[in-house]
Amino acid sequence: MTKEEQLIERFRQRVPSRHRGLRVGIGDDAAVLEPAEGKEWVITTDAFLENVHFLRKVHPPEAAGYKALARATSDIAAMGARARYFFLTFGFPDDLAGAWLGDFLEGMARAARRFNLTLAGGDTTKYPVVVASLTVLGEIDRGRAILRSGARPGDLLCVSGRLGQAELGLRLVQRKLHKRKLWAGLLKKQFYPEPRLKLGEWLAAHRVASSMIDTSDGLSTDLGHICNASGVGAIVWASKIPAVKVPPSLRLSALDPLEMALNGGEDYELLFTVRKRFASRLPHKVAGIPIAVIGEITGPGRILLEDADGQTKPLLPKGWDPFRGR
Amino acid sequence: MTKEEQLIERFRQRVPSRHRGLRVGIGDDAAVLEPAEGKEWVITTDAFLENVHFLRKVHPPEAAGYKALARATSDIAAMGARARYFFLTFGFPDDLAGAWLGDFLEGMARAARRFNLTLAGGDTTKYPVVVASLTVLGEIDRGRAILRSGARPGDLLCVSGRLGQAELGLRLVQRKLHKRKLWAGLLKKQFYPEPRLKLGEWLAAHRVASSMIDTSDGLSTDLGHICNASGVGAIVWASKIPAVKVPPSLRLSALDPLEMALNGGEDYELLFTVRKRFASRLPHKVAGIPIAVIGEITGPGRILLEDADGQTKPLLPKGWDPFRGR
Repeated sequence: MTKEEQLIERFRQRVPSRHRGLRVGIGDDAAVLEPAEGKEWVITTDAFLENVHFLRKVHPPEAAGYKALARATSDIAAMGARARYFFLTFGFPDDLAGAWLGDFLEGMARAARRFNLTLAGGDTTKYPVVVASLTVLGEIDRGRAILRSGARPGDLLCVSGRLGQAELGLRLVQRKLHKRKLWAGLLKKQFYPEPRLKLGEWLAAHRVASSMIDTSDGLSTDLGHICNASGVGAIVWASKIPAVKVPPSLRLSALDPLEMALNGGEDYELLFTVRKRFASRLPHKVAGIPIAVIGEITGPGRILLEDADGQTKPLLPKGWDPFRGR
Repeated sequence: MTKEEQLIERFRQRVPSRHRGLRVGIGDDAAVLEPAEGKEWVITTDAFLENVHFLRKVHPPEAAGYKALARATSDIAAMGARARYFFLTFGFPDDLAGAWLGDFLEGMARAARRFNLTLAGGDTTKYPVVVASLTVLGEIDRGRAILRSGARPGDLLCVSGRLGQAELGLRLVQRKLHKRKLWAGLLKKQFYPEPRLKLGEWLAAHRVASSMIDTSDGLSTDLGHICNASGVGAIVWASKIPAVKVPPSLRLSALDPLEMALNGGEDYELLFTVRKRFASRLPHKVAGIPIAVIGEITGPGRILLEDADGQTKPLLPKGWDPFRGR
């Protein structure tokens, strides 16, 4: 066996890699997949690069492996699809091939089991920094994928979970407070994000959502993506946004919950729109995840933020843009 | 539009990105693909990293873009499938966003048109070095994919094209001879490799090949992959190998055609096996590409190289192994 073959064998043993629809998996030139009757494939690819998407000194290897797969899988949730297979392209330094890699694979395997994903293939090589690309495939009934482009004026704007939690974790890291046990719980969303697969599937199966995106870049930017794709505007009610709770002991001036909820990235919650006549079909929770109505889609134009006094101002896209930085 | 959206628009305009089976392409959270009746999907992912898979000072950006896609697509050819869609995960330095990126995309677009590939999605980010991952999807009639594992004792061992050409190009680069116009033709295989899609499809459609791989790592290593997967050994006849032709003016001691043909990587030719009783079905050329019979599959055991005098010695895997280097 070449060293590469030995490494591939290690991946195969650690991460779930067998599934009935996978005719040929890891170890050949390519994987062979049998499509299920009446289904479409939903496919996404996502970079996971050291110093951009994770910091080796901050993120434990187990969290890095988990997060790499969770981020990519969130795009499958955002289409309303069921997660099925993934591929990993992976470069890493030789000296990480021992314990670090073992923990990384352990985290990735845990995520794969949690999201029902099977590793179907990939490519590995030596590299001075950790660079990964995840390709995730999901399945959905024909014509049921929920696109960004389906929002119409009058639709309600909804979001799952709580916004700004991953950003709070990031701020703790930036202030080097992340190692304090007291605040370990506040890092969970930053280290182990949770793609909302069950909610996405529920919305697609019940045809409740007219458009959807995951909040990977931040509400202000991701809502912009929906509005651009749909040719609409929106108004967001600040008081309705389920913003991150900042513990009193952390209430420093620059930790504004609303600002973190609007512009913080990496929450991987689902932001979606619902025709008003279907509003009654929308439960308060799906699979234990709360859903909040936070605004309304308007005619083409600007995206506005309305405060508790009814004052509005433009909501500018201040979330993550990989080519602008912050 | 965010800067990322502007960049994605640039990709969309340069590279073919529409196809009837692609229900949702670039610009949503994920792509949506409709599988064709009776077909299986063949999927591969391939890293393309600066300083490992290409050198920015050596490979023109147009060649880098072409080669990135050609390398990955070769895995589709190696299964006998038809190339359909691809995804690009791409990180690159800010200062390459102008002319370099334009030329890179031009090369990739040219490869996409040549291989009949449609860009279905991807992910881009700023990064200090150029790091890319290509995911390529192909289609094949159910059950027709040609695997590495089907070789049986007695099968003939065949290879397309000429081996060692890409390695010769690499040696010229290493000796800084690649800028001489006289030898520009010798660099073609190194800069613009050609996945043998038509030959692969022909072999699958006519059920001629019992096993197949592409020579990405080098004959000695890739034949090892087939033998491992099939549980067989092999004998290779040195005199039958279609080795690269080294011009007399370049006949330096370390440019041994046979050695380059055995261990040089990146030729992306097809190495396959054929049951002896089907040998008559095998033409000398398919789609203009010559096919040579270079050996025979034997029972489990070693891989041997037999010279013109009938002397044999073990053929060790001395091709490319990303975790060993050379």
